[in-house]
Amino acid sequence: MSLELRSRLYEALSEPFIIDPHTHINPLAPASKSLADILGYHYFTELAHSAGLAKSQIEADDLAPQEKVERIFRYLGPLNNTIQYSWFVEIVNSLLGFEVEVLLPEHAEPLWNKAVELMADENWEDQVLQRSHLTAVFLTNDFDDRLEGFNTERYIPCLRTDDLVFKLAHPSVRERLASCSGHDVTDSASLEQALRDRFQVFKNRGARACAISLPPHFAPRPVSTARADRALGQLATKGRDADASDQEAAGYAVFWKLAELCQEYRLPFDLMIGVNRSVYAAGVYQGQDLYDSRVSLIQYQQLFNAFPEVRFPISVLASVTNQELASYAWIFPNVIANGHWWYSNTPTYIEHDLAARLEAIPRTKQIGYYSDMYKLEFALPKFNMYKRILAKVLAERYVQDRGWSEERAADLGLQVLQRNTSIIFPVN
Amino acid sequence: MSLELRSRLYEALSEPFIIDPHTHINPLAPASKSLADILGYHYFTELAHSAGLAKSQIEADDLAPQEKVERIFRYLGPLNNTIQYSWFVEIVNSLLGFEVEVLLPEHAEPLWNKAVELMADENWEDQVLQRSHLTAVFLTNDFDDRLEGFNTERYIPCLRTDDLVFKLAHPSVRERLASCSGHDVTDSASLEQALRDRFQVFKNRGARACAISLPPHFAPRPVSTARADRALGQLATKGRDADASDQEAAGYAVFWKLAELCQEYRLPFDLMIGVNRSVYAAGVYQGQDLYDSRVSLIQYQQLFNAFPEVRFPISVLASVTNQELASYAWIFPNVIANGHWWYSNTPTYIEHDLAARLEAIPRTKQIGYYSDMYKLEFALPKFNMYKRILAKVLAERYVQDRGWSEERAADLGLQVLQRNTSIIFPVN
Amino acid sequence: MSLELRSRLYEALSEPFIIDPHTHINPLAPASKSLADILGYHYFTELAHSAGLAKSQIEADDLAPQEKVERIFRYLGPLNNTIQYSWFVEIVNSLLGFEVEVLLPEHAEPLWNKAVELMADENWEDQVLQRSHLTAVFLTNDFDDRLEGFNTERYIPCLRTDDLVFKLAHPSVRERLASCSGHDVTDSASLEQALRDRFQVFKNRGARACAISLPPHFAPRPVSTARADRALGQLATKGRDADASDQEAAGYAVFWKLAELCQEYRLPFDLMIGVNRSVYAAGVYQGQDLYDSRVSLIQYQQLFNAFPEVRFPISVLASVTNQELASYAWIFPNVIANGHWWYSNTPTYIEHDLAARLEAIPRTKQIGYYSDMYKLEFALPKFNMYKRILAKVLAERYVQDRGWSEERAADLGLQVLQRNTSIIFPVN
Repeated sequence: MSLELRSRLYEALSEPFIIDPHTHINPLAPASKSLADILGYHYFTELAHSAGLAKSQIEADDLAPQEKVERIFRYLGPLNNTIQYSWFVEIVNSLLGFEVEVLLPEHAEPLWNKAVELMADENWEDQVLQRSHLTAVFLTNDFDDRLEGFNTERYIPCLRTDDLVFKLAHPSVRERLASCSGHDVTDSASLEQALRDRFQVFKNRGARACAISLPPHFAPRPVSTARADRALGQLATKGRDADASDQEAAGYAVFWKLAELCQEYRLPFDLMIGVNRSVYAAGVYQGQDLYDSRVSLIQYQQLFNAFPEVRFPISVLASVTNQELASYAWIFPNVIANGHWWYSNTPTYIEHDLAARLEAIPRTKQIGYYSDMYKLEFALPKFNMYKRILAKVLAERYVQDRGWSEERAADLGLQVLQRNTSIIFPVN
Repeated sequence: MSLELRSRLYEALSEPFIIDPHTHINPLAPASKSLADILGYHYFTELAHSAGLAKSQIEADDLAPQEKVERIFRYLGPLNNTIQYSWFVEIVNSLLGFEVEVLLPEHAEPLWNKAVELMADENWEDQVLQRSHLTAVFLTNDFDDRLEGFNTERYIPCLRTDDLVFKLAHPSVRERLASCSGHDVTDSASLEQALRDRFQVFKNRGARACAISLPPHFAPRPVSTARADRALGQLATKGRDADASDQEAAGYAVFWKLAELCQEYRLPFDLMIGVNRSVYAAGVYQGQDLYDSRVSLIQYQQLFNAFPEVRFPISVLASVTNQELASYAWIFPNVIANGHWWYSNTPTYIEHDLAARLEAIPRTKQIGYYSDMYKLEFALPKFNMYKRILAKVLAERYVQDRGWSEERAADLGLQVLQRNTSIIFPVN
Repeated sequence: MSLELRSRLYEALSEPFIIDPHTHINPLAPASKSLADILGYHYFTELAHSAGLAKSQIEADDLAPQEKVERIFRYLGPLNNTIQYSWFVEIVNSLLGFEVEVLLPEHAEPLWNKAVELMADENWEDQVLQRSHLTAVFLTNDFDDRLEGFNTERYIPCLRTDDLVFKLAHPSVRERLASCSGHDVTDSASLEQALRDRFQVFKNRGARACAISLPPHFAPRPVSTARADRALGQLATKGRDADASDQEAAGYAVFWKLAELCQEYRLPFDLMIGVNRSVYAAGVYQGQDLYDSRVSLIQYQQLFNAFPEVRFPISVLASVTNQELASYAWIFPNVIANGHWWYSNTPTYIEHDLAARLEAIPRTKQIGYYSDMYKLEFALPKFNMYKRILAKVLAERYVQDRGWSEERAADLGLQVLQRNTSIIFPVN
């Protein structure tokens, strides 16, 4: 009974076309060109590496893409239990026209050929979007991205600000910022000019969010103008040799200024909380970051109080932080629960975290899911995974446990899956 | 099968009359007088505020209660997914004689009228208790409560001590204590006299527990008499201007003294661990507190060892602390797991936490649930929510997973729901 | 449907004979001689003590074993909800030939007699192993264990190193080490000689792992030779009066040296992370330890990076650390998830933690379970508990949620339950 109920709810959730509110899509090359774009995704390379595939085997400069795919294929066996593997199988079956449950090394070549053929179709991008029921996706744009050459109604710009907060001491970042904004940052005033320029440019191009990922120790606070001037001055003259306390003060000053500009330009500020970068420095590309789950949203108390008009869609990296997220979103009007991020984007954690959010946060304040994808083909399996779990939670916890009708349960699902995105991240 | 099994267990759990071992009931006005008493509960105001209702709209001094209710009603739509909303719907259906699944703004007026009519009945209080299968409820009394004018067998006094531990530097608190006890606290000796007076008065009036809520950083320890004398002397002369270290030492001295008196007067000491007050200072009344889930019961190691004869029923605010609670109650004879508090009082967390406790803590050392209510009408939906989850856990984890008979499973449920309360909090 | 499916998977998981990769078995007395060996297990004494049985009642020097058993029996009622109690019931029913669901005080005597009779059989040890489907078990050997007098193919030595890291300042430990290794540790060089001797001896006797349990604050780091020399010199001259900083530095130096030797001798290094010893010092034997769940694997970042060739099977004491374990094992090739330890060895936490591991960690990098037992009779109920949960997770999350065949699901289960042990802990 429950399985059929889940299945019906899944169908209802699968009908509408939606917007994916956070991705790393390159709008100039959104879809894959070959299987190397699919299996090169860090989820596969890092798991294969963890299972024994040497980094040198897949990151050699002169490695032919097809050879890389074949090497990864040989390590899929040890991964075939993982949910990440199931994404690949679903792509293979739903988008590449195969029918297989378990992928074997001998599938590598025919699959490579088939993928090359399909992806060469000039409508491949459109087909993928259509079959994935996607109308648009949010991007992750560097602050100096020119935002040109693509349809911003389909590929919606978002201003990513990690470099500004955490790497403003780096000469290369300073130069990029000076170059794109026309302002060399040496104090608070020039910082504001430079950042304001970026917000204006992004806003003009239809940006619908500002975003940043943050380490566990981060605890934003305002910095006095005098202290910010001194810190930014030190960064301007000493670069990465500036004192750690100046680099930290500068970072907090930049972050606070970003929040002020989000308020002024009415942009939600996506906070992705909890990542430690390069924990495993010898790991494969994009497979080096981990975390310390000892983090609390109390670190953001001052921020949430200071900016009541800024919406903060929050992602947390560890499931143990999810209850705090649910509680803070339940109390603070400007805190919104956002998706299931990275190491928490696996079914057991999604199910537990989603259920806790659905029953405690107003239904209007939850963004169900984003794919975080780099290539369009991943929206389909990732969203389908989420929809199955959403259907399960709605079936078991609403229809069965609380006696809701299926229609009412499906409508709640559609709100967090689809409708809220447009309301929380409005068009200009 | 499982749903029917759950239903039968729920019926078995619903039969007996029980004591609610923690509430904020005012014994001089225990039941609601109007719908404003129901919808004025912070769970509704804070969620409506979080969903967009301005604080000024519901906290204006001259706001008519019916108008307040109508304003909150207009924000119920965004909350109708929450478990808190379901409590209101259950009150409406089970106590107010309506039959609705979803409440709409147009229901506000007829419901208001119906509630006024029913609540005007001189037997309303008795009816609510009867329909809720409640024989008595524990109160939360200020240390200077006169404890007069009510039946202490139905409304059982409990000495709440937050002010004494955390606000003894406040002149108003000092005056209240001096006034009710006849002792001005200036050192350890006068502290003991004042507190002993309060314990004696409460004990005389049938108090069955001492209680306190504690912030995450709290780590109780004994304070030497000399240090306590100095700290209490500073508080006596400087009030809130006393040095922070003196205020802290005084707080720990008071807390330790309370534990000593709990031992002497044989009162269980309810510890509610983990709340940060006024995190969202601009929030609505009682909707400002949150928490930092980075707390550990290791902070209470010294306390649990020093007072082996004091029972400590412990509530934790965050589900991530629940495993520690289960483990400490499994090892320490004087640690008892107590209810599902506040932000952990939602089905997903109750289910996970309850299951973990049932399978690891002796059955005699668990208080299943308390309502924490301010008005009697809330016991019914809150306890029913708990009973449904208890029935689910017993059905799935005992009858199905472990092959228990239904009778045996129901008996375990009744022990944690009903029988343990009278044993752990005995009558004088 | 799901219950039958679970049952079929459980049967499939129960067929093969397995190795138990972590126990505290004494190979010279592996099986119980009487019921006192069973009910003397700390899980029963500590729970009975927690439920009210005085420590003096069961730890008196002159207490007759049968009397001890009868005293514990009288406190089994308050524990009969716990999973630990169910282990005893399963032993009674599966190994001791009784048929009871609930044990009453009057069962104590007949059960005592029956157990004495059965356990006197010279084949009892073999029978227990046979019925438990065990081919071998890993031991926990003190560093100065002579490793003689037993079959090391059945009882596989493992070098336990807590004393070396945390108690090298104790004269008794220093003497034991000098005595067994022939090297008095006064500096880095003699430390290496002494430890190398131990590794060589253990390796010669077929040891397949080095192991240690670690407190929450532990964060291993290399120590310079000069600093290690100074610290070890201080320990040699001052013993436990050595400065805390020297004792700490010595501990880290020893730990790092152990990791180096694990690399050289190709021994996996089992890390059991998170225990605080003697939190409840007045508790019964082995019932005094608890924990602080605020621990992170980020504390082991430097270690995991420094020893890429050492396998680190990791156990965590608190379920809230399990997601970090899953994530670190997903990224680091040398991190392996290992079993469900102690306070996390109860069904609710096993189920949640196991599901999260299965879906995110390569299937080759998970040791499903170990019994941690002191007497052979406990493997049967503990492994059966685990197999039931494994069957449940495979049924619900693989067959139902993901459409896997039963065969494929069972094969995944068998890999983590059985096959991985031999691969991760290879024979010399």
